[in-house]
Amino acid sequence: MSAVAHEPRSALEGESPRELSLVDCDAHHNWRGVKDVLPYLPRYWADYVIESQFKSLPNSPYPKGVGGGERVDARPGDVGSAGSDVELFRRQLLDEWGVDVAILTGQFYNVAFLANAGFAAALSSALNDWMIDTWLSQDARFRGSLTVPMQDPQAAAKEIDRLGSRSDIVQILFSAGSRMPYGQQFYDPIWEACERNGLVAGMHFGGIGIMNPPTSAGWPSYYLEWHTDMSQAFQAQVISLVCEGTFQKFPSLRFALSEGGFAWMPHVMWRLDKNWKALRSECPWLTQKPSEIIVEHFRLTTQPIEEPDDDKHLLQIFEMMDAEHTLMFSSDYPHWDFDSPQQAFPRLPADLKRRIFAENARELYGL
Amino acid sequence: MSAVAHEPRSALEGESPRELSLVDCDAHHNWRGVKDVLPYLPRYWADYVIESQFKSLPNSPYPKGVGGGERVDARPGDVGSAGSDVELFRRQLLDEWGVDVAILTGQFYNVAFLANAGFAAALSSALNDWMIDTWLSQDARFRGSLTVPMQDPQAAAKEIDRLGSRSDIVQILFSAGSRMPYGQQFYDPIWEACERNGLVAGMHFGGIGIMNPPTSAGWPSYYLEWHTDMSQAFQAQVISLVCEGTFQKFPSLRFALSEGGFAWMPHVMWRLDKNWKALRSECPWLTQKPSEIIVEHFRLTTQPIEEPDDDKHLLQIFEMMDAEHTLMFSSDYPHWDFDSPQQAFPRLPADLKRRIFAENARELYGL
Repeated sequence: MSAVAHEPRSALEGESPRELSLVDCDAHHNWRGVKDVLPYLPRYWADYVIESQFKSLPNSPYPKGVGGGERVDARPGDVGSAGSDVELFRRQLLDEWGVDVAILTGQFYNVAFLANAGFAAALSSALNDWMIDTWLSQDARFRGSLTVPMQDPQAAAKEIDRLGSRSDIVQILFSAGSRMPYGQQFYDPIWEACERNGLVAGMHFGGIGIMNPPTSAGWPSYYLEWHTDMSQAFQAQVISLVCEGTFQKFPSLRFALSEGGFAWMPHVMWRLDKNWKALRSECPWLTQKPSEIIVEHFRLTTQPIEEPDDDKHLLQIFEMMDAEHTLMFSSDYPHWDFDSPQQAFPRLPADLKRRIFAENARELYGL
Repeated sequence: MSAVAHEPRSALEGESPRELSLVDCDAHHNWRGVKDVLPYLPRYWADYVIESQFKSLPNSPYPKGVGGGERVDARPGDVGSAGSDVELFRRQLLDEWGVDVAILTGQFYNVAFLANAGFAAALSSALNDWMIDTWLSQDARFRGSLTVPMQDPQAAAKEIDRLGSRSDIVQILFSAGSRMPYGQQFYDPIWEACERNGLVAGMHFGGIGIMNPPTSAGWPSYYLEWHTDMSQAFQAQVISLVCEGTFQKFPSLRFALSEGGFAWMPHVMWRLDKNWKALRSECPWLTQKPSEIIVEHFRLTTQPIEEPDDDKHLLQIFEMMDAEHTLMFSSDYPHWDFDSPQQAFPRLPADLKRRIFAENARELYGL
């Protein structure tokens, strides 16, 4: 890495745009524990954390299969969790792989499932302030995702307005699993605030099996299933956001879908298009073909990339989903199923590679 | 149609196998109303129907968008529902399209969501006896699917043993949506009985949004969404049946998945294969690659066929999912989204067409 890239962000201001060759759209920073954010909480909520001995966010009943979900080599000694040490994070991800920009995605989206919405709002603000101080200020290659209380859209919008105009904040982040489908009116204040602040709506793996069963067939038994079923939540959310007319209300809103796979995209586009032709009288505001709306408003990240036996099949899916404009590289560092930018992909045409590894992210996030 | 095909079944016994050119794997016969099956119910349950003024099975809160879900031209006058008249059914489906064999699938799978499992068992038996008398006996081209009480696997197994050895019964039928995932041990007596009787396990569109929310994100607003989301239930069930080891327990068991689409197959196979490589210590009985199990044990029907703008993409999906061995034609007569065997498909190579239109079904159902 060049010395310049290690400088704090301010040193770069006013420079002309750098050439980007690798943007990692899903890199998980972590706290060492809730004590990291205590200084950022108002007294009432700090006391609440201490009195309740709060340690972790709500979670589903599926213990993670491998290393507790973490790359064991990404744990800083015996202290803290994988991804909680800025120096190790820089060395193992940014320097080792030559990442020009890493979108920090934390692991805090389950804030949205706290029953106490006031606590969720306070904790979100503390997590965001802590991220700015501890992470974004340390390396010009970092960009931040805001944690927001999805269970209280007005409070979420307020948090987005509080920090959303910062140039180092590029999106909000929430899980694919949710209490209700994201297209429903309840969430509109959040999308409105994203649009107002020019932020991407980042939807990330997680959150299924907390408020609702993880599948429409109920509760599967294994983490292996839970993880594989995850993409269904993304499918449901895309269908909801399109059918409810979210993009008629917020035409410049864009979603980044992370860690839910992408080879399901053609199926959803085709099934929804076919049903729309016959059933659109139910949703008369849908005057554009759903697949066109999807390709315009959704971007997807690559990890965990699907690996068919025949690389040709993956390239065919790329064409069906217009990957040249919709797909963005992600590593998921420091989780167990990390994808390396050098090993996870089949041989790609140079232009397609440039789009997936940097250009689509640059355009989406305005890097 | 040849005159022979119109003869009652008994006239064909002992003949050598006919050439099949078109098998319709999803043709919905219907009752005119519950009164049709009253003569087949024991006195206690007939009284129960009359006293409770029972008229229809449990259903989800999504009124159907088009013609109440039916082809209006398939209603026999003002009496009864679409698909309730044998003569009209024969004329509009079998004769008009030259169907050699039609697998009757009814519309009764929501029996599985009756809270009273005893009623579900009695109603299932009555529906099956009525189907044999009123439908299967009327045309040698019909084959039957048994309705069974999925909420009581022991009772379901008993019903399968009662009728499963008949040569005109080829499968049981239940919905993709369920109370719990079908791979879970609870359902094993049903799969065991299917295997014992050489019956296919037919999983059909339906049943989401009754016992569980229709998606892992909760309840969408529109039938358009509900219908599009349906394929997620199939994905979840395939994942469950594979991961729980159902096919290690019942190695000759085969599933026919109807009306849930198929272009999601490659995604599920690839994501599950990748996760299995890393997480299989959780399911050590899974010694075979999940995608191989899927291609061996699952068949899928075509309707509603996905219709990409470019036919080439559909043919690529066919290759990824080994459609030559896994895909079977279905029309969904007499529902609103009926697929014609002559108009719904792109131009297919002759051999692939023969496999999809007849041979895969002949092999699966032993026709």
